[in-house]
Amino acid sequence: MADRPPRRIPEATVARLPLYYRALLEMAEQRIPTVSSERLAEMAGVNAAKVRKDFSYLGSYGTRGVGYDVEYLLFQISRELGLTQDWPVVIVGIGNLGAALANYRGFSARGFRIVALVDADPAKCGMEVGGLAVEPLIDLPRIVAERHVAIGIIATPASAAQEVAELLVSAGVTSVLNFAPTVIAVPPGVSLRKVDLSIELQILSFYQQRRDEAEGGRVALGGMS
Amino acid sequence: MADRPPRRIPEATVARLPLYYRALLEMAEQRIPTVSSERLAEMAGVNAAKVRKDFSYLGSYGTRGVGYDVEYLLFQISRELGLTQDWPVVIVGIGNLGAALANYRGFSARGFRIVALVDADPAKCGMEVGGLAVEPLIDLPRIVAERHVAIGIIATPASAAQEVAELLVSAGVTSVLNFAPTVIAVPPGVSLRKVDLSIELQILSFYQQRRDEAEGGRVALGGMS
Repeated sequence: MADRPPRRIPEATVARLPLYYRALLEMAEQRIPTVSSERLAEMAGVNAAKVRKDFSYLGSYGTRGVGYDVEYLLFQISRELGLTQDWPVVIVGIGNLGAALANYRGFSARGFRIVALVDADPAKCGMEVGGLAVEPLIDLPRIVAERHVAIGIIATPASAAQEVAELLVSAGVTSVLNFAPTVIAVPPGVSLRKVDLSIELQILSFYQQRRDEAEGGRVALGGMS
Repeated sequence: MADRPPRRIPEATVARLPLYYRALLEMAEQRIPTVSSERLAEMAGVNAAKVRKDFSYLGSYGTRGVGYDVEYLLFQISRELGLTQDWPVVIVGIGNLGAALANYRGFSARGFRIVALVDADPAKCGMEVGGLAVEPLIDLPRIVAERHVAIGIIATPASAAQEVAELLVSAGVTSVLNFAPTVIAVPPGVSLRKVDLSIELQILSFYQQRRDEAEGGRVALGGMS
């Protein structure tokens, strides 16, 4: 019973923590001091029992009749997610999407600091985007080593994504976020997540379809439900 | 017992359907005919009991020892999510992000058809992006009516997002997807979803932090875990 091993948090709970975090941030901005598991559940789209179970992994149990302290829960989740650390990020592929990500305010606010923009196209190198000059892909190993890059974002066309993933991994990056609309593979020990920009659209179409059915078909689409 | 009301699918199940759909599409591309709830659970990041429960809402129960039929499950989910329909989409705000979304292959593959690109900046109007000419914001009501727009995507700066949401709603759009990094409000009866591009980064940082701790700190970051 010497060194306590880190608590094991289920993968599904980890995936929900950013949703709670976002909901709690909104409340903090509105200076709401406490929140019930029911309200948080509603905002994050899960049930209240699940919220309480998820927070129990963080050692947070709330107070009966009062709920959870918003600021303290924000601190606990940001610590658990590693948002209290500084994470140097490189973006590879500076087309429209890469440029949009380089300018995205939401990253730096969470501790994700873009330290380099890289592109294979020599014509783009030197171009300034979001305050950084685009650098050549060939310099990636040096950039990763010198700037202690922790996370690599792939924003290339689908055809280049696998090759870029391999370059990132061989340069020592162990966390990869893929925005390219294709499936890529990484070796064991490297974390890979994929962003599918169409997921939220699919959820919208579910509800829109339900509404249309309730209104008697797409004819009624122009009206308000 | 006359007209059966539509089955009530819990919101959390709806939010997981696109994740299953994406995993099943990958399997279909690899010509895998059947899948176990355990394998799907792993790919979607939930537990297997949850997968079976979610699919029971679709009336899909799988076969013991065989699992679920990939193609049939794809059909069921796409029907449930409304992906078998055509959804005309307008994108408002054609900066880097709007342009990236206009060119994003993943939308049309799911039935989301971009029918218009709109921007408030007269200098952008007429510019061609992803095969469409950018149109002025003032034409939004006519565009929505004539092209039966079902879903509006907001890709403007945060400061313009609320005003654009109101324009979309007053033009008759009842589904809004917000990419702007700010909280906006819509009237009851309008569906609103928000894309936070930093969510997957937060999940990566959770695992990266765990790995770093296991390796004795950030010093080991350059090495492979």
